[in-house]
Amino acid sequence: MNTTSAVNTAKDPQNTLKVTTPTDREIRVERIFNAARSRVWKAMTDPSLIGQWWGRGNKLVVERYELQRGGHWRFVEHDPEHGTNGFGGRFREIAPEERVVQTFEWDGMPGHVFIETVTLEDLGDGRTKLVSVSLFHTTEERDGMLHSGMEHGLRDSYAALDRLLAKSN
Amino acid sequence: MNTTSAVNTAKDPQNTLKVTTPTDREIRVERIFNAARSRVWKAMTDPSLIGQWWGRGNKLVVERYELQRGGHWRFVEHDPEHGTNGFGGRFREIAPEERVVQTFEWDGMPGHVFIETVTLEDLGDGRTKLVSVSLFHTTEERDGMLHSGMEHGLRDSYAALDRLLAKSN
Repeated sequence: MNTTSAVNTAKDPQNTLKVTTPTDREIRVERIFNAARSRVWKAMTDPSLIGQWWGRGNKLVVERYELQRGGHWRFVEHDPEHGTNGFGGRFREIAPEERVVQTFEWDGMPGHVFIETVTLEDLGDGRTKLVSVSLFHTTEERDGMLHSGMEHGLRDSYAALDRLLAKSN
Repeated sequence: MNTTSAVNTAKDPQNTLKVTTPTDREIRVERIFNAARSRVWKAMTDPSLIGQWWGRGNKLVVERYELQRGGHWRFVEHDPEHGTNGFGGRFREIAPEERVVQTFEWDGMPGHVFIETVTLEDLGDGRTKLVSVSLFHTTEERDGMLHSGMEHGLRDSYAALDRLLAKSN
């Protein structure tokens, strides 16, 4: 099964979020940002900036962020409606400004770990294309993520990242 | 590809270790122990006993062992020839005396995580069959584990477990 959805809402006015399933254990996300790759990279990897967009508008505490092979990361999101949610993992590979490969685990489903590979492509016109591919152990885990409200959450997070990137222009 | 090897050496005199690959992302290990299931379970899950067999005869420090859903485990093996080696993961599911599902990650390949499901079967004659199925994200990771000396290490560890179980009879 290969599904594609393209969302273009008021919160995502310019740069459409594309969510596809290239294989039965993967989710691919594509999104363009109106900023140079170095600035998108900084917003993705500087803990003081991550807190400003990753939590979809909710308070986010970056408990650990050790951006090196084998380093750990851990974020706690404080959602006024749903309480706290912890997320974490470990860095597998880092190519500055180009690519991060990391594990990703949500406290709500401990022991369910997927591998996220995020790449940033310089589009040459001041914009940057982010591509994230997540690989799950099973199709069921992949589908669980697809049906978790992931796409809605990503749209909110990336809209917050748009605002952060616009501010620091 | 489905390979089977059955090893029966001086170190593994009675109860043959069986290592098979039921799918292209799994390794299945089967081993029989001459002890009741409750005693095998205790040796597997009591930190003071784990240290006596898991490290293949090497000193093993159990840094964390939180046997509950979402709990973490971390072992550090001190090998006189190869230095220290850290291993860890998180518990996904626990059915006392019957089954543990956990993640498994070796510090030497951070971010490469497999899911290990260990089940104990009471054979009804005072013996217990342990079956461990490990599921990897990719065939390459699975093959890397197969070629890492895993089988030799397991043989040594299970022989040490045999000795521990014999002692406490």
